[in-house]
Amino acid sequence: MKYFTTVNDVKDINELVDDSLLLKKNPHRFSSLGKNKTLGLIFLNPSLRTRLSTQKAALNLGMNVMVMNMNEEGWALEFEDGTIMNGNTVEHIRDAAAVMGLYCDIIGIRCFPGLVSREEDEKEKVLLSFMKYSKVPVVSLESSTLHPLQSLADLVSIRETWTGKRKPKVVLTWAPHIKALPQAVPNSFCEWMRKAEVEFVITHPPGYELNEDFTRGTPILHSQQQALEGADYVYVKNWSSYQEYGKILCRDQEWMLTHEKLKCTNKARVMHCLPVRRNLEVLDEVLDAPYSLVLLQASNRLFAAQAVLKKILLSNGLSSMETSLHENEQIQFSK
Amino acid sequence: MKYFTTVNDVKDINELVDDSLLLKKNPHRFSSLGKNKTLGLIFLNPSLRTRLSTQKAALNLGMNVMVMNMNEEGWALEFEDGTIMNGNTVEHIRDAAAVMGLYCDIIGIRCFPGLVSREEDEKEKVLLSFMKYSKVPVVSLESSTLHPLQSLADLVSIRETWTGKRKPKVVLTWAPHIKALPQAVPNSFCEWMRKAEVEFVITHPPGYELNEDFTRGTPILHSQQQALEGADYVYVKNWSSYQEYGKILCRDQEWMLTHEKLKCTNKARVMHCLPVRRNLEVLDEVLDAPYSLVLLQASNRLFAAQAVLKKILLSNGLSSMETSLHENEQIQFSK
Amino acid sequence: MKYFTTVNDVKDINELVDDSLLLKKNPHRFSSLGKNKTLGLIFLNPSLRTRLSTQKAALNLGMNVMVMNMNEEGWALEFEDGTIMNGNTVEHIRDAAAVMGLYCDIIGIRCFPGLVSREEDEKEKVLLSFMKYSKVPVVSLESSTLHPLQSLADLVSIRETWTGKRKPKVVLTWAPHIKALPQAVPNSFCEWMRKAEVEFVITHPPGYELNEDFTRGTPILHSQQQALEGADYVYVKNWSSYQEYGKILCRDQEWMLTHEKLKCTNKARVMHCLPVRRNLEVLDEVLDAPYSLVLLQASNRLFAAQAVLKKILLSNGLSSMETSLHENEQIQFSK
Repeated sequence: MKYFTTVNDVKDINELVDDSLLLKKNPHRFSSLGKNKTLGLIFLNPSLRTRLSTQKAALNLGMNVMVMNMNEEGWALEFEDGTIMNGNTVEHIRDAAAVMGLYCDIIGIRCFPGLVSREEDEKEKVLLSFMKYSKVPVVSLESSTLHPLQSLADLVSIRETWTGKRKPKVVLTWAPHIKALPQAVPNSFCEWMRKAEVEFVITHPPGYELNEDFTRGTPILHSQQQALEGADYVYVKNWSSYQEYGKILCRDQEWMLTHEKLKCTNKARVMHCLPVRRNLEVLDEVLDAPYSLVLLQASNRLFAAQAVLKKILLSNGLSSMETSLHENEQIQFSK
Repeated sequence: MKYFTTVNDVKDINELVDDSLLLKKNPHRFSSLGKNKTLGLIFLNPSLRTRLSTQKAALNLGMNVMVMNMNEEGWALEFEDGTIMNGNTVEHIRDAAAVMGLYCDIIGIRCFPGLVSREEDEKEKVLLSFMKYSKVPVVSLESSTLHPLQSLADLVSIRETWTGKRKPKVVLTWAPHIKALPQAVPNSFCEWMRKAEVEFVITHPPGYELNEDFTRGTPILHSQQQALEGADYVYVKNWSSYQEYGKILCRDQEWMLTHEKLKCTNKARVMHCLPVRRNLEVLDEVLDAPYSLVLLQASNRLFAAQAVLKKILLSNGLSSMETSLHENEQIQFSK
Repeated sequence: MKYFTTVNDVKDINELVDDSLLLKKNPHRFSSLGKNKTLGLIFLNPSLRTRLSTQKAALNLGMNVMVMNMNEEGWALEFEDGTIMNGNTVEHIRDAAAVMGLYCDIIGIRCFPGLVSREEDEKEKVLLSFMKYSKVPVVSLESSTLHPLQSLADLVSIRETWTGKRKPKVVLTWAPHIKALPQAVPNSFCEWMRKAEVEFVITHPPGYELNEDFTRGTPILHSQQQALEGADYVYVKNWSSYQEYGKILCRDQEWMLTHEKLKCTNKARVMHCLPVRRNLEVLDEVLDAPYSLVLLQASNRLFAAQAVLKKILLSNGLSSMETSLHENEQIQFSK
């Protein structure tokens, strides 16, 4: 595994979930695996959970971490090829990414969508440029369209708590919000749920259909109550419209999750990736109930990231077992 | 000791001072005590001395450090319970603090007062919320009303330099400033001096009385010269009015400390927590004199922080002796 | 070597180049040399390459690194002596630098010129103040007038790739840009080339003469083509006028480097310190050609920084061999 940017980068999601849970039992077991290896974390957007959990995951593996906030500490990047750079952009992504690849053994990158042009956002310009030009393994810390580290942590949390024999019923439900949010988390959740051993259902108001590539084959209901029936897990998330790209079409508070609504479920556990707008997306009574998994999900972010970094270290000859071969290779002058 | 937010969190201040001085002699003696433990430093306000000294204190103990600047790297937090979060705040402190507690074994937090509403500031909303919701030990890096790490370093500096048999006379004197500053440093200094073996006197212009809770029983003089008489230590600090909350009532340059004024003292050493406005609060001739302790105080910030972190590591089962028990405990799903 | 701020701080540049190349072969050979030592990196201006490469260089030597962004995380510094600090500056450099010297064993500092007053910029106020007041070794991460870490990496790159018997011909050529840039990189490059075993030539439009102190004795041509003839290395860089200080006198795109222009060279390798404005300073076809050394230079930034830090650790009694003597010394109270 060289990249971790979508579920399709993962050969066996069950193995990755198992490994996350093993690391949770013994987080410091591989504390010298990443010795002398450096993780570069590049943030084009704010981050709390991802920033801290990924940083700690790397430290648990003995890696060094260098954090780069591109807005404040860096500069505006140029993404167009062949352009005459006589405007505001200070450095071409070709050069910036290549240079960061020289100093980092693995790069993590966060780059949100603009939510203005669907075409632009779906190009995943930033993420793909880093993959292309840095030459080193790249981990998505949430891109324009996907957030796989979140989804892995979500699946780990389901696996950790599900004791039933049958497949659990997992419902992804849209929730109201005052800001236009990306579709990255729900897209990713769909990708992972469709590969997991669960019965998966989506519910949202009309007009909030996600990109079919991620939902194909999944039942979509416009009645939240009907979708929730018999659910074992309810995943709450707002997103902006994909059809009328980046727009807010509905502010109906009827879509907010309450304890009352959960009565038709199978004592469902409630999930949210955080940050959550309390009493707008979900009522306090739900978030603070014993059946809320939101903090469990957050804690599993650490082990999901650790499992991903461990996998990348091992499958790219970056573990401390091999000598600093990679590094020598990378920085020699090739004529 | 789970919290270090006021002198009242400390059972024995002498023990903590002694330990700071021992660590100063051998800063790397406990360099594996904090192995695999993570200190999270959260800054809602700027910081130089506190940022660097606390970071280094943790590194000296073998801890990992993760720094989070909440303004630039994070987002606006909501503190009101039960509110419908349809405004500018992005995440509730309940969730943000709980999540940070999942990734950090100890949290340090800096949160200045607004200096608008005394009632608001005295609630210590930010600090208390982190204590309540993070579940892990919390160290104040200066809160709305107190700055205990500074005061511990101040006391260490007095102890380190005082060779007399009798109690030294310590004078806290107000000084002019052009900005309205918090009362945290003087409040804290009062708290600590009243518990220390010193003769403590306060002097300031009328209207600058501090909260009585911190000064009760301490002589307060409005004549600076009278207060300075026979002083062994003179602690200079500006603060804004507590009575007319957050206001500047006096700009009288007569209150600036000069060498001349020190002539009536017992060759007093001069202290200031820094940053200091030179030639406004104190004259250059005083700050750069051999009797100035300001750099000694700054250097002792490191060892004060190290003694506090060491104490917290040891008294919360966080030292490397015990296995990663804490961590396992904390992140399991409780049904 | 206590300071690394100009080529004149270096006794033997060849030794430093050799050591950089040795470290490149085995970057982790001295991974405990800097144990328990702390590098403080202070940025008054943005940085990508320097930030990451210097950080990693220190980590490779086992040092701790603390990063301080003075604008966002710190405050405005006062540089004038004796001034009454009743304005916007919050702390005097005397105090700030002295305090940072207490917490750091080596300080790296980046401080760009204002490009308004030549006299002001040439005073190197920030750099010299840190050298004067911090008391610890200081490394320039680019100052108002010089960028020695870049030049060392440049020389390492030339040495690494030159296999001829004779001295290589190295040409520094001005290139167009839309912003007024400092002269630090070309000044520094001149300093180092004049001490290196190369034949050195400068070419730029009239009015772009650099400070003679750095170019004395070096042939300066106004015809780029004539200068390029027979060149083995072509170093491209924009700078603003030194005569009409900080001004842009020429925007002539004829000065942009193209493949065509290189035909008269001896299959010259092309160098640039990055960031580069593509198709404004240099054409894509040149930057992406096999003869472009720009990424080699960037990778050598790491080893240049590592060689410098190693030298400073060893020649200031800071290596882990000696006990924490330095630290004890520094923080005792001197009466």
